[in-house]
Amino acid sequence: MRFTKSLFTLVLALGLAVPAARAQEPVQPEYPGLETGKMWTFDVPPLEYWARRYNFQATPQWLENVRMSALRLPGCTASFVSSNGLIMTNHHCGRGCTVGVTRPGEDLLTNGFVAASQAEERACPGLYVDQLIGITDVTDRVNAAVTAGATPGRAAEQRDAVISAIQQECTAGQATTTCQVVPMYRGGQYKLYRFHRYSDLRLVMAPEGQVAFFGGDPDNFTFPRHDLDLTILRAYENNQPLHPANYFRWSANGSSEGDLVFVVGNPGSTGRLYTVSQLEYIRDLQYPMNLKALRSQLAVYRAVSAADAQHASALRNAIFGVANSEKAVTGYLGGLQDPRLMEHKRAWESEFRGRVNGDANLRRQYGDVWDNLARIRGQMRTLFLRRVYYSFNSYGARLLGLAGVVAQMPGQLAKPDSARPQEFRDANRQRIERGLYAGAPIDTMIEVRMLAAYLTNMAADLPATDPVRRAALGARTPEEAAAAMLQATQIMTGDQRRALVQGGDAAINASTDPFIRLAKVILPLQRDIDRQWTDLVNQESQYAERIARALLAVYGNTVSPDATFSLRIQDGQVLRYPYNGTYAQPYTTFAGLFDRWTGFSGRSPWDLPERWISHRDSLNLMTPLNGVSTNDIIGGNSGSPVVNRDGEVVGLIFDGNIESLPGNWLYEERVNRAVWVDSRAIVEALRHVYSAGTLADELTRR
Amino acid sequence: MRFTKSLFTLVLALGLAVPAARAQEPVQPEYPGLETGKMWTFDVPPLEYWARRYNFQATPQWLENVRMSALRLPGCTASFVSSNGLIMTNHHCGRGCTVGVTRPGEDLLTNGFVAASQAEERACPGLYVDQLIGITDVTDRVNAAVTAGATPGRAAEQRDAVISAIQQECTAGQATTTCQVVPMYRGGQYKLYRFHRYSDLRLVMAPEGQVAFFGGDPDNFTFPRHDLDLTILRAYENNQPLHPANYFRWSANGSSEGDLVFVVGNPGSTGRLYTVSQLEYIRDLQYPMNLKALRSQLAVYRAVSAADAQHASALRNAIFGVANSEKAVTGYLGGLQDPRLMEHKRAWESEFRGRVNGDANLRRQYGDVWDNLARIRGQMRTLFLRRVYYSFNSYGARLLGLAGVVAQMPGQLAKPDSARPQEFRDANRQRIERGLYAGAPIDTMIEVRMLAAYLTNMAADLPATDPVRRAALGARTPEEAAAAMLQATQIMTGDQRRALVQGGDAAINASTDPFIRLAKVILPLQRDIDRQWTDLVNQESQYAERIARALLAVYGNTVSPDATFSLRIQDGQVLRYPYNGTYAQPYTTFAGLFDRWTGFSGRSPWDLPERWISHRDSLNLMTPLNGVSTNDIIGGNSGSPVVNRDGEVVGLIFDGNIESLPGNWLYEERVNRAVWVDSRAIVEALRHVYSAGTLADELTRR
Repeated sequence: MRFTKSLFTLVLALGLAVPAARAQEPVQPEYPGLETGKMWTFDVPPLEYWARRYNFQATPQWLENVRMSALRLPGCTASFVSSNGLIMTNHHCGRGCTVGVTRPGEDLLTNGFVAASQAEERACPGLYVDQLIGITDVTDRVNAAVTAGATPGRAAEQRDAVISAIQQECTAGQATTTCQVVPMYRGGQYKLYRFHRYSDLRLVMAPEGQVAFFGGDPDNFTFPRHDLDLTILRAYENNQPLHPANYFRWSANGSSEGDLVFVVGNPGSTGRLYTVSQLEYIRDLQYPMNLKALRSQLAVYRAVSAADAQHASALRNAIFGVANSEKAVTGYLGGLQDPRLMEHKRAWESEFRGRVNGDANLRRQYGDVWDNLARIRGQMRTLFLRRVYYSFNSYGARLLGLAGVVAQMPGQLAKPDSARPQEFRDANRQRIERGLYAGAPIDTMIEVRMLAAYLTNMAADLPATDPVRRAALGARTPEEAAAAMLQATQIMTGDQRRALVQGGDAAINASTDPFIRLAKVILPLQRDIDRQWTDLVNQESQYAERIARALLAVYGNTVSPDATFSLRIQDGQVLRYPYNGTYAQPYTTFAGLFDRWTGFSGRSPWDLPERWISHRDSLNLMTPLNGVSTNDIIGGNSGSPVVNRDGEVVGLIFDGNIESLPGNWLYEERVNRAVWVDSRAIVEALRHVYSAGTLADELTRR
Repeated sequence: MRFTKSLFTLVLALGLAVPAARAQEPVQPEYPGLETGKMWTFDVPPLEYWARRYNFQATPQWLENVRMSALRLPGCTASFVSSNGLIMTNHHCGRGCTVGVTRPGEDLLTNGFVAASQAEERACPGLYVDQLIGITDVTDRVNAAVTAGATPGRAAEQRDAVISAIQQECTAGQATTTCQVVPMYRGGQYKLYRFHRYSDLRLVMAPEGQVAFFGGDPDNFTFPRHDLDLTILRAYENNQPLHPANYFRWSANGSSEGDLVFVVGNPGSTGRLYTVSQLEYIRDLQYPMNLKALRSQLAVYRAVSAADAQHASALRNAIFGVANSEKAVTGYLGGLQDPRLMEHKRAWESEFRGRVNGDANLRRQYGDVWDNLARIRGQMRTLFLRRVYYSFNSYGARLLGLAGVVAQMPGQLAKPDSARPQEFRDANRQRIERGLYAGAPIDTMIEVRMLAAYLTNMAADLPATDPVRRAALGARTPEEAAAAMLQATQIMTGDQRRALVQGGDAAINASTDPFIRLAKVILPLQRDIDRQWTDLVNQESQYAERIARALLAVYGNTVSPDATFSLRIQDGQVLRYPYNGTYAQPYTTFAGLFDRWTGFSGRSPWDLPERWISHRDSLNLMTPLNGVSTNDIIGGNSGSPVVNRDGEVVGLIFDGNIESLPGNWLYEERVNRAVWVDSRAIVEALRHVYSAGTLADELTRR
């Protein structure tokens, strides 16, 4: 019904009750540290905050069990979930193993895998997990190693050396021990993390790729969602299943809306301590430029696809990847452009500065940093466009980049190895030569259009007097220039490029190839911009460290440090949130999965594996499949367990909602949600789709 | 998985196919009239456009059958759907009947109704439907009746007189015939619509209110949706079921994504011909002021609710209603604030003006109208704030409004009846006195806060020198003023107000009541502003009519006129649309209904009637429940049939998505969607929830 007034009458008449939701919107509680998020470290858990907000008392035993049950997997998180060494993570985190154990004639990524018995579990080649067994504060030792008054470069070397020494001492040659010094608060603190490494992992179960990633790229980063993004591994020791001292028990009943839940995992990276001036720079320059580049590429790929069926098929995945990045960056930018979020950030920064300036001592030490950071970003703004275009990153067009390497090779190779930049050192020689001489042939249809798109943006962004623009375009239109350059180039093939490099500087200098000539204009200008840029970046990191120290001085341990892909504990609540003019439900179900499958008539990427279609009636469709909670997570948390007050598994993190994308910079409980597979769905699917009752029994044994 | 790059790799590796969706986004076709929407009249169907766009040839027989099968219900649409006179409409459109036939001890609105046999069908008191049996162009006769050079007021009288005469002639005293002259294109044309009226309607079936309106206020105006918003009636003649010559057959298979579908119904009102300057006025002044008032009211209601449990319960529905209006107006405003939409409108207006100015004759007749409309809106802008605050509409505070009526009563009653404004005439005397003397007691807790909120906005919007502001506030804060006025008032009770009116002008003039005194300041100022305003409105409607004539002169019959609650045929396609970072599926299913019910743990307004919970396993959950299509609909279309190329029922319109709210002013195929109950859900529910197989058989008999 669309007439507001009539609807009002209807509602009055029907006497519909108030949805409980209205009262449930989370209120940012009075806790200063929450402004930077809720990614707590295990050495400084916010016990008082948890007690006050959730009436939850975390005992040392509880914390230790939770810490020791969680694991770090390369790029992801995992956890022990049975007394016989079962490990749970995401399908996309176990992907390397699933591919690695696939035998000829199999396609386990597509079709899934269930070991019928322990004997059939397959060893994952090269995979390991790390269990955090101790944290030590080494801040003083790291700081003491840096000479007072050292230049930034020298200081970094001294710091690297002492960190390396600390790590070596800690490992002490034990094969199963790994150590890492983790900088917290951007160098405000250094913590030594010691891990036990388990290196014999075997694949127990993985569902079909299509049910792990149902909805594909369109549904990625969104909720409501319907993915069984799961891999189950088992750790072995001496060829026997491991019996870990700590593991997460399976919750008997799962969770309910409003429940306190913890995520335990390894969030990768955040920039919550960035100042307003830094965020404004990213908002005004960096992201818009990223989007411009991504959209230009998309337009070229789509135009080429539309013009030619063969290209359309070949470019399908490239278009997906770029579109997915475009979606992510749009989300990041959306957060920074949201006046409400930015105003919140501004208010908090102003309160933080106020506290620094309100204390004479703090003011003397830190009072200047915000203005200095703003000054630095101001200088970066003046360099920005030249930094973008005095480069060889011309979207998907490859010849300019190749010309940049070719033009430098003879000069760099003439230097002693240690005097060259990293990428030109002998250790990387093979890789660079492969890229130069043995890459896929240049696709001229894409190359000419992509180059034209790049030059179009350059012409719009740089003034007519700019030397790079002049050299690239002259009086030509971008299309004319691109066509002429492609027409005249002499570096289309690997052999041509090899001959040029082998001809040395003389050949380079004599070359009339338009890309080589353009590269020779760009190179010295790029070096100059890079030098200025590096200087600003070094200055900035010093101020950033001082901001972090000010933060610790003002707020102490109430503040969680930025994510560093180290183990954190992240509190939250299962909770609906406002979306699409209404509320997103806190849980989806298997019924929702089949609803969306039917709604799209099973068209890709909303198709389902045959096993799921044929087992539909065996499932209890009302079983919760995915859920959302207010935990503050970010990439790297993939595969994290979601546990309840009793430390029992109720879910498995695999994504955030679209509103969580600004979480890189700003955390907001109102709409930011972590998205997880519900523990009940895992058991239901194991029992009723995969006939893996024994495995389900092992998970749920108490 | 949240790392974009890793995801990219994953997608590449899995080789997921491209979703067909990407290619399916609708492109606004080359058809000039589409800028004003797709609400076509039956006398000028866009045959050539349908043929070109959909390869669909509408024969005169097809059109006649569709027109004669559709019906108009007060405020809604309905249609004949069986050879025995079954009529289908929405639950909320049949609400009057459902309430009307409810017997003591029953609650049919809540519990639903299914007639076990024809004998148990219950006659709806006072309900009727109108079937459009003929359209005649009477533009010339209407225009001829207006004297050249008549003042706007005189012209309106002459026009009303001739329209009245035409309608009377047409009806010619036949009880079953109704006639209406419908102004099209804001008076650019006048069409005589002749209807056959059916007045014996009986209730056959209505589902439970909660399944008709599942998701309540939060889900209202949104999609994905899960409502069985249905009433089934039957028309009788001579106490026998009617056998209509025309009715919609039921589609055997329903629809699929991409299908061409038509909506046949009575869209209420649109302003698609508004100029950019008119829309800017609404965007900049009207809607923001509406929202300010709504939000102030909400804030007061919520504060009072928070402070007092008894109020919380009493205010529940009031809060719902205001929140719902706030949601709607936010949607309307959102469209006008969307730079993409406004830019589109601007481009089209510029094209239209270009065509007018490109023809010397048209230019002479119509070239000035846009500038004149902009001038008029400019003048309205200067009056706007005074028009708002020189009034008695002080949100939910009632005393000022009552004082306004009291202060005028003696003076108005002293005049002859015909010299009074409508509301003070004897015919309305009883109603006005009931409102003045017999209303609910003033709730001082709400009254004082609401008045303070109103005065706060007044103080922010009017300059300190403004006479109304001065009289209301003086040097007091809004809170002080509100408290003092409530303290001193002598018109709190109906008796006090009656005594004052009976005391005549002398008593009014002598009154020291602060509301009466404020009313006496406002009244003459309001009269002056009203006079200026009415003059501008009259001028504007003359220019609006000329714009409509220019439109017809330039585009002819390719343009559909604004909605006028008269029968239209609206083409569209079943189609997904971008939402929430992904795509909304074109269909939901019963599985989706139970998914959302489970996801919210059955909490209101996502609860379900017991009959639905207990019959869940009897239903085929994969049956489509609601669907979306690109048809251009608006309030009044509620209850419209959705029919396929063969004129068969595939759905029942009941709402639009949140993105359709700007449709008042601008139609955009990309995201605007009509929301309907799927015909397959109706049959499935009748058979398997309501045990109404006979009724389902009657509907689907072919």
